[in-house]
Amino acid sequence: MKYLSGQAQNLPGNRQSLGAYTASHFSYSVTEAVATIVLNRPERKNPLSFDSYAELRDLFRSLAYADDVKAIVIAGAGDNFCSGGDVHEIIGPLTKLDMPGLLSFTRMTGDLVKAMRACPQPIVAAVDGICAGAGAILALASDIRFGTLRSKTAFLFTRVGLAGCDMGACALLPRVIGQGRAADLLFSGRSMSGEEGERWGFFNRLSIPEAVRTDAQVYAKHLADGPTFAHGMTKKMLQQEWSMSVDEAIEAEAQAQAICMMTNDFHRAYHAFVAKQNPEFEGD
Amino acid sequence: MKYLSGQAQNLPGNRQSLGAYTASHFSYSVTEAVATIVLNRPERKNPLSFDSYAELRDLFRSLAYADDVKAIVIAGAGDNFCSGGDVHEIIGPLTKLDMPGLLSFTRMTGDLVKAMRACPQPIVAAVDGICAGAGAILALASDIRFGTLRSKTAFLFTRVGLAGCDMGACALLPRVIGQGRAADLLFSGRSMSGEEGERWGFFNRLSIPEAVRTDAQVYAKHLADGPTFAHGMTKKMLQQEWSMSVDEAIEAEAQAQAICMMTNDFHRAYHAFVAKQNPEFEGD
Amino acid sequence: MKYLSGQAQNLPGNRQSLGAYTASHFSYSVTEAVATIVLNRPERKNPLSFDSYAELRDLFRSLAYADDVKAIVIAGAGDNFCSGGDVHEIIGPLTKLDMPGLLSFTRMTGDLVKAMRACPQPIVAAVDGICAGAGAILALASDIRFGTLRSKTAFLFTRVGLAGCDMGACALLPRVIGQGRAADLLFSGRSMSGEEGERWGFFNRLSIPEAVRTDAQVYAKHLADGPTFAHGMTKKMLQQEWSMSVDEAIEAEAQAQAICMMTNDFHRAYHAFVAKQNPEFEGD
Repeated sequence: MKYLSGQAQNLPGNRQSLGAYTASHFSYSVTEAVATIVLNRPERKNPLSFDSYAELRDLFRSLAYADDVKAIVIAGAGDNFCSGGDVHEIIGPLTKLDMPGLLSFTRMTGDLVKAMRACPQPIVAAVDGICAGAGAILALASDIRFGTLRSKTAFLFTRVGLAGCDMGACALLPRVIGQGRAADLLFSGRSMSGEEGERWGFFNRLSIPEAVRTDAQVYAKHLADGPTFAHGMTKKMLQQEWSMSVDEAIEAEAQAQAICMMTNDFHRAYHAFVAKQNPEFEGD
Repeated sequence: MKYLSGQAQNLPGNRQSLGAYTASHFSYSVTEAVATIVLNRPERKNPLSFDSYAELRDLFRSLAYADDVKAIVIAGAGDNFCSGGDVHEIIGPLTKLDMPGLLSFTRMTGDLVKAMRACPQPIVAAVDGICAGAGAILALASDIRFGTLRSKTAFLFTRVGLAGCDMGACALLPRVIGQGRAADLLFSGRSMSGEEGERWGFFNRLSIPEAVRTDAQVYAKHLADGPTFAHGMTKKMLQQEWSMSVDEAIEAEAQAQAICMMTNDFHRAYHAFVAKQNPEFEGD
Repeated sequence: MKYLSGQAQNLPGNRQSLGAYTASHFSYSVTEAVATIVLNRPERKNPLSFDSYAELRDLFRSLAYADDVKAIVIAGAGDNFCSGGDVHEIIGPLTKLDMPGLLSFTRMTGDLVKAMRACPQPIVAAVDGICAGAGAILALASDIRFGTLRSKTAFLFTRVGLAGCDMGACALLPRVIGQGRAADLLFSGRSMSGEEGERWGFFNRLSIPEAVRTDAQVYAKHLADGPTFAHGMTKKMLQQEWSMSVDEAIEAEAQAQAICMMTNDFHRAYHAFVAKQNPEFEGD
């Protein structure tokens, strides 16, 4: 695992600061513990490249150790979220690779999703306009999704001759919108409208295009102000319990919640309640 | 495992009668094989206490052996379902416990959910008004849920500094309403309205507040009049197949349904059909 | 495993042709690589018999090796889809069987679902009118479902004294419509209306009755014209990842998609894109 140590300050226990990180292949900034990642090649609808894939993977891996980032927003510049892997920069070169080369690419893109699911910060996607291919996966791999009426989300791998099973889509999408609707999107490659996305549970809310990024940031700020250690545990358990039996999951939660009951935030909440005040959480 | 043997009559094969059980920390009554549990501290919106948690756990464990109860309704007295663990009676004492003490508490609450999922009787929750914290889990751990337009269901653990992973919520809620909507409720702790609950599949139906408990009882009575041995198998397999592969689940159902084809109820249904009558099921 | 070798021509690698297969217990025809199966006893609402179960099982098993069928439509003759196992032809005889006999029946019906899930061709169900019992399972075991406003889908096993766990229903249905709605249908045996089916994600689309089969065939033709090797991989991974952890599923997809990147269809799509043409996929 490669850390972004050039930009990061090592802290005790391998904690890192990522508040001042400067990204090379997208825009990145941190305000009040909320990191905002903006894919920023709007003239091409914000495609991904080999370099931006790899930097995103490394950034999300490093965020697992960053204690100055408590929530993450991911968005696209201009009127679109992300058009996915660029045809000229990615698909063309892929057609020339041998099997080990192909597998190293598909594992790298999969590692990005693994890193997004493994970092403790909740990720809020702000999705306007085109959200296609690997871009649709970035939205799917987020925890919360805000869309717009004009957003078009397409798992269009089938339209470039590939399967719908890309970066975890066949596992993740059925859990979000149901097996039947996922099959339709993955086999046909058709676009899901914003209205469908909200109705099917893909989008948690629809915003107007001008506000979708801000709305996502407000939501992320609300989470960043909360008991962030506990939020990290919620995210971890949503991941861990995926393939457990019900009884195993209940035991896992008994342990996880007992850990959270040892935090100062739990005590802060209790004392604030007794004092008829709002708790101020600090994430420890 | 503690049986409610003081109130229960032991029958051959460890069967028990729970028709005459008298509950200490909630109201309990059985009419025509439908048990109705009512959380009854309406002046506090029916909170749970250490004692009511434990008695509910023991009751559901004993119901697994009760052959005079065929379906269960759970409701709250007055205009609310359940406000969850009481701040003064539960949260305060928890802040003073060490880790073994905390884990014994979280395991005890988890054991209540395990017992609700393990008893063969379908559980129908009648949810009006506040349904919060552990109260929301009681509704979630039921098989069928009736709500009202004014019901407010909140997995608000995060608001007391804890994680959303409580009593199995991170496993159960995504299967009921989808992973994205579950993440929103568990991270934010916000209330789900009755309308959202119906639209998302949390509530099977919305009733008017005056009728919600009766509607749940009518539904439960319908199930109690049906092939209750088979209903118990349906409930068991919905639980067992949770983390099986598709093919494993199909084999498990081949065995389970073959067992049900040996019952008298299956034969009764066939003979009633041939005689152009309605079958009268007896649960054996 | 029994192959339909009487009607099929063996090709290298055990490939078979099923374009000219003549079915005995239902209607079967192949047009432009789309096979259409029509249950055709409309005077009885197209019930299943021991013979039609077995022939369907053998046909779907053989389709796994057929390279001249790329997508499948399943429909019912007249105004109904399928009334399920016939009371006189199936239920009556079952009441006379011993346990090994019963298990051989439930395993046979389960094997039909396993074969539908295992064949690489996407299956599109066209559901009008009655869709009951094992008929509802045929629709559920399909990949895509088109319904009508007057379709009535009932998992009515409970009404013949049996459990809802039949042919995989307790595993499949919760993934399609959610655990709560599935529990309602499986415990009560009630009909799901066409409108409910669309709203809950059981039906991908509602058609008018006169058009539902044609609409399903148009959809199937669209898939048959696509990258069918990749579609087979999508279907396989939707099945395989069912009970994997998220990270295991992502690795499985990295391998599966790398395999698809070795296909000619992937290269065809790239070269068509560069030439600003539509790709012509050939399924290899």
